[in-house]
Amino acid sequence: MENKRRRILLRVAYDGTNYHGWQIQPADNTIEAELNKALFQLTGEQIQVAGASRTDAGVHARGNVAVFDTVSPIPPEKFSYALNRYLPPDIVVQQSQEVSLDFHPRHCVCQKTYQYHILNRSLPLPAYRNTAHFEHGTLDMEAMKKACSYFVGEHDFASFCAAGAQVQTTVRTIYDLEVSANELGTDRIGETQDQMIIIRVRGNGFLYNMVRIIAGTLLEVGKGRIPPEKIPEIIRACDRGQAGPTAPAKGLELVEIEYLQ
Amino acid sequence: MENKRRRILLRVAYDGTNYHGWQIQPADNTIEAELNKALFQLTGEQIQVAGASRTDAGVHARGNVAVFDTVSPIPPEKFSYALNRYLPPDIVVQQSQEVSLDFHPRHCVCQKTYQYHILNRSLPLPAYRNTAHFEHGTLDMEAMKKACSYFVGEHDFASFCAAGAQVQTTVRTIYDLEVSANELGTDRIGETQDQMIIIRVRGNGFLYNMVRIIAGTLLEVGKGRIPPEKIPEIIRACDRGQAGPTAPAKGLELVEIEYLQ
Repeated sequence: MENKRRRILLRVAYDGTNYHGWQIQPADNTIEAELNKALFQLTGEQIQVAGASRTDAGVHARGNVAVFDTVSPIPPEKFSYALNRYLPPDIVVQQSQEVSLDFHPRHCVCQKTYQYHILNRSLPLPAYRNTAHFEHGTLDMEAMKKACSYFVGEHDFASFCAAGAQVQTTVRTIYDLEVSANELGTDRIGETQDQMIIIRVRGNGFLYNMVRIIAGTLLEVGKGRIPPEKIPEIIRACDRGQAGPTAPAKGLELVEIEYLQ
Repeated sequence: MENKRRRILLRVAYDGTNYHGWQIQPADNTIEAELNKALFQLTGEQIQVAGASRTDAGVHARGNVAVFDTVSPIPPEKFSYALNRYLPPDIVVQQSQEVSLDFHPRHCVCQKTYQYHILNRSLPLPAYRNTAHFEHGTLDMEAMKKACSYFVGEHDFASFCAAGAQVQTTVRTIYDLEVSANELGTDRIGETQDQMIIIRVRGNGFLYNMVRIIAGTLLEVGKGRIPPEKIPEIIRACDRGQAGPTAPAKGLELVEIEYLQ
């Protein structure tokens, strides 16, 4: 008797430093390839996961989502522990559960939450060299906070989409965008500023590089090069050239995907 | 005309993951060897730094101290920036200053602060795989806090010293020992506990593996295997066999060394 085919959803955390992003590429190690390999080792089945978000090289995740079908008798909620025995330590499945056979992680209504990390002090700290963008200059937090407010809502975010991206529409909704400073405060060397700045954004979907371009634009605001009041004009322009640069990949973390159906 | 010989103090942060500890060893890469190499590249002088604390393989630092003599005309406070150009990204000099020619980092009165990091949740997180010890079980924080109080003060800490260590005395003073829980709180997967537990200790000096044995003993207290009230008895025994196991190196960070002279 053959086992019933089931669809399993995984929530996957990873440090993207040593990978060429999520998506399978010939000759490069990727998160997707590691998951497929571990699933084969665990089940003996040739499984191809479908990911919710194809994160770029160097980008991290705490809760990216992957879905696959299997006839394995392993209980759905046990896949996380079982798979972690075959995965390298920089990829850890956080949760597994059964979903309906028509569930697809990219064709469902969802909210995504990202964080962008900026280490703001006079010198880099080795502990954060792969997970935060380093910025030594003074950043005007009040100006950055003010700028955030203009992004919230439904807008055409074409100014915040990498050139060449092919999408049906560049309209997206941002529900929250907040910037906060977290003191590191563990030494007395006398830093005038010694903080981790976290940009946290939640929306119904994001264009290619959108969070990194928002982060890069907020950094320009923090440095006084773009006044916060100019953000609505930048959005209205629908011109990538009007926004700030794309902030480096390593500061970005996909925190969570919530499915709302 | 030859430049004046000066003694320079460096405060050095590093991620110890990829090193065989501080101290120079044949054929192994160490923090000390990297500093000597960078100093040679910068000054052309064959410099051997003297370190304050010879941290073990895998142990991290935010403020270990190294001292060296030089005739270089580089201003003392500029050595940090200049050296960082020759150091790998997992070693960053945080500060440099001139000290008197009779200053020695191990023969001066000082206070040292260490932190031990415990990731306490049901599954590991890749971002902390090299910088925190993972513990999935429930830990009784109140019991751990109570246990901490018994360590404070001047005691013979022979029970908390690795066997075979050669020291004149095993008496040390702990000024503060605190355990705190910091919520990670960035997802909603529904962890019953999802926290980084930080053990922070400040003292006038520490025996070999002392902080890691204290951390390992506090973990036993947290798991209910050692009652907190038993700590005074364990200290009085002066017997390494009475204390808990040595917690793994990767959770340990040398935060700061303060010279009090």
